[in-house]
Amino acid sequence: MAAPQKKRTTKNAQSMAKSQREISISEFFTKNRHLLGFDSPAKALLTTIKEAVDNSLDACEEAGIQPQLFVEIRPDQPLNLGIELSSQDEKPKNGNGNKAPAKEDRFKLIIEDNGPGIVKAQIPKIFGKLLYGSKFHSLKQSRGQQGIGISAAGMYGQLTTGQPVVIYSRTGITEPAHRFKVKLDMKKNEPTILEGDETIWEKEHGTRIEITLTGSYKRGQHSVDNYLEQTAIANPHVHLTYKDPKGVTIIYVNSTESLPVEPQEIKPHPYGVELGILARMLTETKARNISAFLKDEFCRVGPKTCEQILTTADISLRKHPKRLLQDDIQRLLDAIEVTKIASPPTDCLSPIGEELVMAGLKNGLEAEFYTSVTRPAAVYRGNPFQIEVGIAYGGKLPGDELAKVIRFANRVPLLYQASACAIHKSVLGASWRNYGVQQSRGALPNAPMVILIHMASVWVPFTSESKEAVAHYPEIVKEMTLALQEAGRKLKRHINRRAREKDALKKQSYIQKYIPFIGEALQEILDIEDSEREEVIATLTDTLERSRKL
Amino acid sequence: MAAPQKKRTTKNAQSMAKSQREISISEFFTKNRHLLGFDSPAKALLTTIKEAVDNSLDACEEAGIQPQLFVEIRPDQPLNLGIELSSQDEKPKNGNGNKAPAKEDRFKLIIEDNGPGIVKAQIPKIFGKLLYGSKFHSLKQSRGQQGIGISAAGMYGQLTTGQPVVIYSRTGITEPAHRFKVKLDMKKNEPTILEGDETIWEKEHGTRIEITLTGSYKRGQHSVDNYLEQTAIANPHVHLTYKDPKGVTIIYVNSTESLPVEPQEIKPHPYGVELGILARMLTETKARNISAFLKDEFCRVGPKTCEQILTTADISLRKHPKRLLQDDIQRLLDAIEVTKIASPPTDCLSPIGEELVMAGLKNGLEAEFYTSVTRPAAVYRGNPFQIEVGIAYGGKLPGDELAKVIRFANRVPLLYQASACAIHKSVLGASWRNYGVQQSRGALPNAPMVILIHMASVWVPFTSESKEAVAHYPEIVKEMTLALQEAGRKLKRHINRRAREKDALKKQSYIQKYIPFIGEALQEILDIEDSEREEVIATLTDTLERSRKL
Repeated sequence: MAAPQKKRTTKNAQSMAKSQREISISEFFTKNRHLLGFDSPAKALLTTIKEAVDNSLDACEEAGIQPQLFVEIRPDQPLNLGIELSSQDEKPKNGNGNKAPAKEDRFKLIIEDNGPGIVKAQIPKIFGKLLYGSKFHSLKQSRGQQGIGISAAGMYGQLTTGQPVVIYSRTGITEPAHRFKVKLDMKKNEPTILEGDETIWEKEHGTRIEITLTGSYKRGQHSVDNYLEQTAIANPHVHLTYKDPKGVTIIYVNSTESLPVEPQEIKPHPYGVELGILARMLTETKARNISAFLKDEFCRVGPKTCEQILTTADISLRKHPKRLLQDDIQRLLDAIEVTKIASPPTDCLSPIGEELVMAGLKNGLEAEFYTSVTRPAAVYRGNPFQIEVGIAYGGKLPGDELAKVIRFANRVPLLYQASACAIHKSVLGASWRNYGVQQSRGALPNAPMVILIHMASVWVPFTSESKEAVAHYPEIVKEMTLALQEAGRKLKRHINRRAREKDALKKQSYIQKYIPFIGEALQEILDIEDSEREEVIATLTDTLERSRKL
Repeated sequence: MAAPQKKRTTKNAQSMAKSQREISISEFFTKNRHLLGFDSPAKALLTTIKEAVDNSLDACEEAGIQPQLFVEIRPDQPLNLGIELSSQDEKPKNGNGNKAPAKEDRFKLIIEDNGPGIVKAQIPKIFGKLLYGSKFHSLKQSRGQQGIGISAAGMYGQLTTGQPVVIYSRTGITEPAHRFKVKLDMKKNEPTILEGDETIWEKEHGTRIEITLTGSYKRGQHSVDNYLEQTAIANPHVHLTYKDPKGVTIIYVNSTESLPVEPQEIKPHPYGVELGILARMLTETKARNISAFLKDEFCRVGPKTCEQILTTADISLRKHPKRLLQDDIQRLLDAIEVTKIASPPTDCLSPIGEELVMAGLKNGLEAEFYTSVTRPAAVYRGNPFQIEVGIAYGGKLPGDELAKVIRFANRVPLLYQASACAIHKSVLGASWRNYGVQQSRGALPNAPMVILIHMASVWVPFTSESKEAVAHYPEIVKEMTLALQEAGRKLKRHINRRAREKDALKKQSYIQKYIPFIGEALQEILDIEDSEREEVIATLTDTLERSRKL
């Protein structure tokens, strides 16, 4: 072994051990805030509203209430602290790219719903603790899933303005309303309650949250305005009132009063389980024998399947789950793998539906052709999911540009990180030339086209905690590709028909041009009257007209 | 307010509250394992080796030891459990995309280094607890930074095979070696020590880890082989022995014995601090007055800058840090913003250097042109960083293909999620046509070209915990663009020169073809001898030759 060539430091294992420390989850996400969607002031604004709206819609739907939301971005002035540059000379200059941070705007974001409200005891943790929530452990389609979003938004507000999150909540007309002011203790990842009293609130039931943060309000593709517009497209049952920073109010009226089909919670499917998870489930189960364990803890395991699995694994049906050794567990897993088990139920999913996808596109875009496809449910890692695609083409859509892709996951619009997303990858990968659309290698198709893709699942695998892009699981990309192909073939038929029509029209106008000359020539050869000539011309024109219609 | 249109469930705030739960960080990452780089069997193999190699190289360099690494991927058979399909008919069929998980291979991964070793007390936590490490709280260029990677790899092994991580470590020839078997308690995120005894180990100092997991060994762009090869390119001081699953051994001999310049730890720069962080630093500091606080806790704050900040903020130099109120903190922050403060020191960075970037490219690629650019250090959110670009062009590189982009962050090759990466975005955004290279809209340049980009920083902002792609901070994209432009201009000069040469050559061969005819024509007109004609031809050819050389 080579001796150290040059001892530059006196560091060794002992001195290095001293710097080993535990990292709190809130410290981690403060430093890695871009993972949560807070890497720029504009994005911070959008992410906060998105997390709050997601929660409101989930809560309303779970309680069977038609959502009525109010969203406001209110400019908020910090105290005038009287600091001004003393002279132009002292203005910081950029030395080597080192900039003083740009002055950002301060906003108070208000999101209010008519949902079921939150019981008093839960309020501080939901808004003041990362990794706390109801959706992480449940297999059911919902917008939120991690228990990070809204508390992270509050943490960001606190980080940039020092202000706590303010929450109003009321669970019913016979209950008192509560008003909380909550901060997040970043070392402990626990809520600090500054205020938490009963209050008077005119709302019968619902939740209102106020977060003050520095951010930047912008229009365009990545804007709050665009996010809310797309939310309305994918959620036609939502009534949404939005007041922008200039005080302009936009109302998205719900186009339907019926809530989406309520997704049912399912148990995990045996094909999705892994050794470590199975081992843990076995120690945590309340079942007294392995047979009951399999039937209770998984979906699609009936008495026959159960017996088949256990016979293959050579494990007694009556064995206590906690008595299984590592080898038994491995055998159980191997037996599951070779047993035919029905696909998980799909009533845990609530797709938008072909009709509403199409209606959404028609509502927002003036195209000449629309189509939509809702695929049957499929499964990745034991999780059911379903893909929907909509295409709008031609008409007033911009021509010589790359196609626009609109992405949704569980009805939530995804505005950032398009190129990291499996949806984007699938669109790139579909052979658009086959469908009569131009496409350069490695680029989006080049056409007057908008492509909408929706993934509905009990668990959408996002590429980061900020839930902006879908991870590239092969099963998911495959389903997206199939859906795009199906929609692409429909598009091709339209484009071909259009091309044929154009072609026929061209030929027709060509022949039409010559019909009078044919008339004249016939008149000369057959020596007929002018009226007969006119008749011939009329007959020929008529024949041409009829042939075109066929 | 509209009454609930149809009460589908009986859920209300009370029943919904019951499902609210805390989520442990290890549960979170088990379910979101793709965030850590474990979303496919092939990637799991690569990620595990990558995390272990990163740690080994960091430890060796920190202790001033020239790294000698051994990496092995050893096929590992699980116990033969005697389960076979009883008949063809019982083979599970894919119902609606629901597949039984594909049978994966099982491997034992071994990574051994000659580093400083780890003190006994730290071993379990480093390998059996997520979010535990030495690099998160320090501002210094290093490969690891989060304290997640290696324990996550161990967790994945445990999840898929039930096997613990095995660690050998020795801190010096006078110390005993230790052998640990560690598992991770997924509910508590704490290590469980199965064994932890002294042992005999021939190594004088170093660490060896063994992780058994299911994975998939593949060759190609995303392979372990490719990762190790690129690691050798960016770390010419590393001696690396690699034994692949077939037992074939490849040795990457170090081309230099000198370690990279040792990056120094720096303090945070005032421009990078935010209100919430500043408030926390003020409560945690040991400084007794605000003046000492600013000078001790930040870089680039000397007595003069300190006084200037505090005068602008109207805060007494002797005020105790813990006595500052929220308004004072806001004023302090505003004062920092308007004060001119020098850029942070850059000795915390250790770039590869233009020469070694070029040497690395020349070593691996047969091109006709090479160039490299190391930009001066710049700053984002108070963090110094530095961008390097290398380009190889033409020669034996494949012609009619999109350019290949090789990405590095702190000398670590990034193999996945290219399209999510700021590096990829910068390459897409550079106007390659200006440099004589074809490029379709929205696509990579189309040329026989390899582009290497390295980002060195005290804190690389990755888009996920798996550290596969750099987040799109505007300052970072800007520096990458500048580096690409600089390299692009050099490439353009080469391509232009090539074009001119080709053009001249074409003209020359054209004239050359006619010289003999000119000779003959002159002979006829002037009636000269054959020898004179030959002389004229020679002279003309010679003149042409010389003009070309000019």
